[in-house]
Amino acid sequence: MRHIRLVVEYDGTGLSGWQRQANGATVQGHLEAALGRLLSHEVTVAGASRTDAGVHARGQVASFRTERSIPLHGIRRGLNSMLPDAIAIVEATEAPDGFHPRFSATGKHYRYLLHTRAERAPRWRDRAWHHPGPLDRAAMCAAAAPLLGEHDFAAFRAAGCTAKTTIRRIDRIEVTEPPAEFPGDPPALLAIDVRGNAFLRNMVRILVGTLVEVGEGRRAASQVAEILTSKDRTRAGITAPAHGLELVSVRYDGRKIVAVPGVE
Amino acid sequence: MRHIRLVVEYDGTGLSGWQRQANGATVQGHLEAALGRLLSHEVTVAGASRTDAGVHARGQVASFRTERSIPLHGIRRGLNSMLPDAIAIVEATEAPDGFHPRFSATGKHYRYLLHTRAERAPRWRDRAWHHPGPLDRAAMCAAAAPLLGEHDFAAFRAAGCTAKTTIRRIDRIEVTEPPAEFPGDPPALLAIDVRGNAFLRNMVRILVGTLVEVGEGRRAASQVAEILTSKDRTRAGITAPAHGLELVSVRYDGRKIVAVPGVE
Repeated sequence: MRHIRLVVEYDGTGLSGWQRQANGATVQGHLEAALGRLLSHEVTVAGASRTDAGVHARGQVASFRTERSIPLHGIRRGLNSMLPDAIAIVEATEAPDGFHPRFSATGKHYRYLLHTRAERAPRWRDRAWHHPGPLDRAAMCAAAAPLLGEHDFAAFRAAGCTAKTTIRRIDRIEVTEPPAEFPGDPPALLAIDVRGNAFLRNMVRILVGTLVEVGEGRRAASQVAEILTSKDRTRAGITAPAHGLELVSVRYDGRKIVAVPGVE
Repeated sequence: MRHIRLVVEYDGTGLSGWQRQANGATVQGHLEAALGRLLSHEVTVAGASRTDAGVHARGQVASFRTERSIPLHGIRRGLNSMLPDAIAIVEATEAPDGFHPRFSATGKHYRYLLHTRAERAPRWRDRAWHHPGPLDRAAMCAAAAPLLGEHDFAAFRAAGCTAKTTIRRIDRIEVTEPPAEFPGDPPALLAIDVRGNAFLRNMVRILVGTLVEVGEGRRAASQVAEILTSKDRTRAGITAPAHGLELVSVRYDGRKIVAVPGVE
């Protein structure tokens, strides 16, 4: 039985997230339908991250099994010709022994974008949360520092989260102003890059919602450490909207599986 | 009678272009409907550029007349609250005497984006023309050189173009690889920036279609000068698709009217 690993990019706008649903177009649903047509048998696709409706990905990792001998480039091109424009297969490789997109993952990198100009920007409407007015980047960085390392992140998970343990490890949080798209453009984006071993449901979005309240000056930076210790979701900030979030990459380096090319 | 000048940004995806139509959502149509509600009288909006369906703008300039004494920030905020997310008013100012968005314009800057990765990129699907494979940027620059200055651009206009004269002046054509969006990202975009005094219908898109054929090696760079001299549309390249094009800014400096802030 062959086991094939895919790197998948998608624009989450108009998609109902990763996970297959009875109603609603999802990435898993589209992939399974396209693979069923390509391979003429039923296929179940596993994914590294169950991204929510509206969340984007440029390095989602997925895998499936087949007996067919179709070459890897035929799988990549065949899928790309059948999938909607919102989804693209960037890479198809044979998966190593014992590989599972989610359980083998040793790290994930998410990026959250905010747009801080007073007037909304139509070209960022599906990619960045519009937050009119400046945010105190230094305060946000200071607030993020106590989150680094292994902690119980129970205060930063959605009500419906069913994870058995709420211990996770965050390796890096960076709050940066990305360079302007083109020379001469006014800078208007703020990016929050979060890297960790794994994440609870809505964890990045709740972290972002909390850091934004610090950036606005509505919360002291020191409160974030207190929220973490409290393990109380009601003390953390709002869940930032889905459309600002992107799964950048998934790492498998602990198991010596090559990481997604072109991204860290 | 007050005369108000607007700077308008829009995502052209899903819009039927600038110009009001009996059927189809257009930028002019949305602006006139919103202004009608805001001012309680019928309003006609003039625009600097009649952009096609799917074309974007971050510096479209428009104007309208009213007797109402509503302050400028009230016009800007009122319109932004009524317009769809795809359209935003960035600025509202009193127009100088004798101003007309199109006839007073002394220059326009358009940008065309190409995405050159082998696999399509979902996040660029509405912003850049997907051209899989590299393009010879040096050949494209060489081909563009003879287009600079004042010429008869009859070979580079759409069949339906009704302009009385086909003489236009191109001031600059730049073919650049914009920096990666984020450090570590693979660069995959090619930008063609065109600045001139005014443009014929589809002129930028036909120029781009022709330069891309040069970049592919399917045409010699020297052919572009010959096409220009021939004044024959059938000798130029294809019309590049609308969704890669953006109106960056409109200049009024010949009349000492302040240019769009934040862009050149």
